[in-house]
Amino acid sequence: MAYDFYWISGSPNAWRAMLALEYKGAPYVSHRLDPSKREHKTPEFLALNPRGQVPVLNVDGSIITESLAIMAFLERAYPTPPLFGETPAETGLIWQRIFEVVNYVRDPIETGVVRVISYGEAMKDPEATKAAACVATARLDWLEDILAREPYLAGESVSAADIATMPIIEMLARFGAKPDAITLALGFDDLGRTHPSIAAWLERLQAVRGYDAAYPPHWRK
Amino acid sequence: MAYDFYWISGSPNAWRAMLALEYKGAPYVSHRLDPSKREHKTPEFLALNPRGQVPVLNVDGSIITESLAIMAFLERAYPTPPLFGETPAETGLIWQRIFEVVNYVRDPIETGVVRVISYGEAMKDPEATKAAACVATARLDWLEDILAREPYLAGESVSAADIATMPIIEMLARFGAKPDAITLALGFDDLGRTHPSIAAWLERLQAVRGYDAAYPPHWRK
Repeated sequence: MAYDFYWISGSPNAWRAMLALEYKGAPYVSHRLDPSKREHKTPEFLALNPRGQVPVLNVDGSIITESLAIMAFLERAYPTPPLFGETPAETGLIWQRIFEVVNYVRDPIETGVVRVISYGEAMKDPEATKAAACVATARLDWLEDILAREPYLAGESVSAADIATMPIIEMLARFGAKPDAITLALGFDDLGRTHPSIAAWLERLQAVRGYDAAYPPHWRK
Repeated sequence: MAYDFYWISGSPNAWRAMLALEYKGAPYVSHRLDPSKREHKTPEFLALNPRGQVPVLNVDGSIITESLAIMAFLERAYPTPPLFGETPAETGLIWQRIFEVVNYVRDPIETGVVRVISYGEAMKDPEATKAAACVATARLDWLEDILAREPYLAGESVSAADIATMPIIEMLARFGAKPDAITLALGFDDLGRTHPSIAAWLERLQAVRGYDAAYPPHWRK
């Protein structure tokens, strides 16, 4: 039976879960919510997830929230192709990378930079924005260092670590090319020059099964 | 072959990983580091984990950092007894709880309250400390609500969600009973009264295999 999957175009958390659904070939019915209509805050949706956040996966009436939990669920339900490794050591490294990203990379990029630009607040305190960009750049440098040595974040094969991280970096690249970001010279508008291994990794991920289907549709316009 | 496990007494992240090792019956050699001697910042330890943080697990020369990654590794290496569920739906719910704790509970308690008290900074800005305590209390209320309905955070059986969360709550109970916290009436010194289901859960967890072995030794004094 197909799952019900609730998502918002451009939400990095929804994106990673949707890509995992596509990668696994899991059957799902897509429910795209329109945040401009506050469709993620309706009573119906809040009944599914009281936090009013996407993604949400409805599995025969059992609700799973939290994007990485959805990915872990899918790994158990659809072990092949694997996203969390084939050996215990691979599983350990993949989760290590995920938690490194969750603990050290996500907030500096999503909260520190992307949100500030997307809320139109980058010019309110340019020095603060630049300082936040500095932290985000250091986190990119850390990713660059890994990807200069290996094609994917946990070694030779694509894994949940890549799928979990990619939308965060795509968001940064998108918002880092906005006029305010350019004006402030935040340095996120040409990853191919500043972080070539990350740029090559993003290109590599475009070949992953389901990449096109999970790409935020409103970004294509 | 036994793993090398590096930890600091009282570190909640090390505690959860150590309890998982004990729960799984995994063979390990204990390396307790003394933070007062900066043993987690020596060149030797930084070679294992450049972040200078515990826990670290050395698996035949492969290093795993990040406590929850160590737990995920152990689950693959020692599937029985399970900590991440027996069905995909159980796995999904356990990881959901873990990420809810990571995303919404951990920082308000560890950074907002425990660190402030342990650093002796609670009285510097009493209103800020009380405001932080308010947020932490709301997160406790959320846990209380789950545990009023079910014996463990993901249902009828103990899971990685409980083992991951318990040290955070134990830390709060310990530091919430310090003089500064009492003076400010932060309200964390009598969980049995304020959050009886959490208190009962903590007691229940004392029966979990390995609980005593993983209990912070310097807390016993």
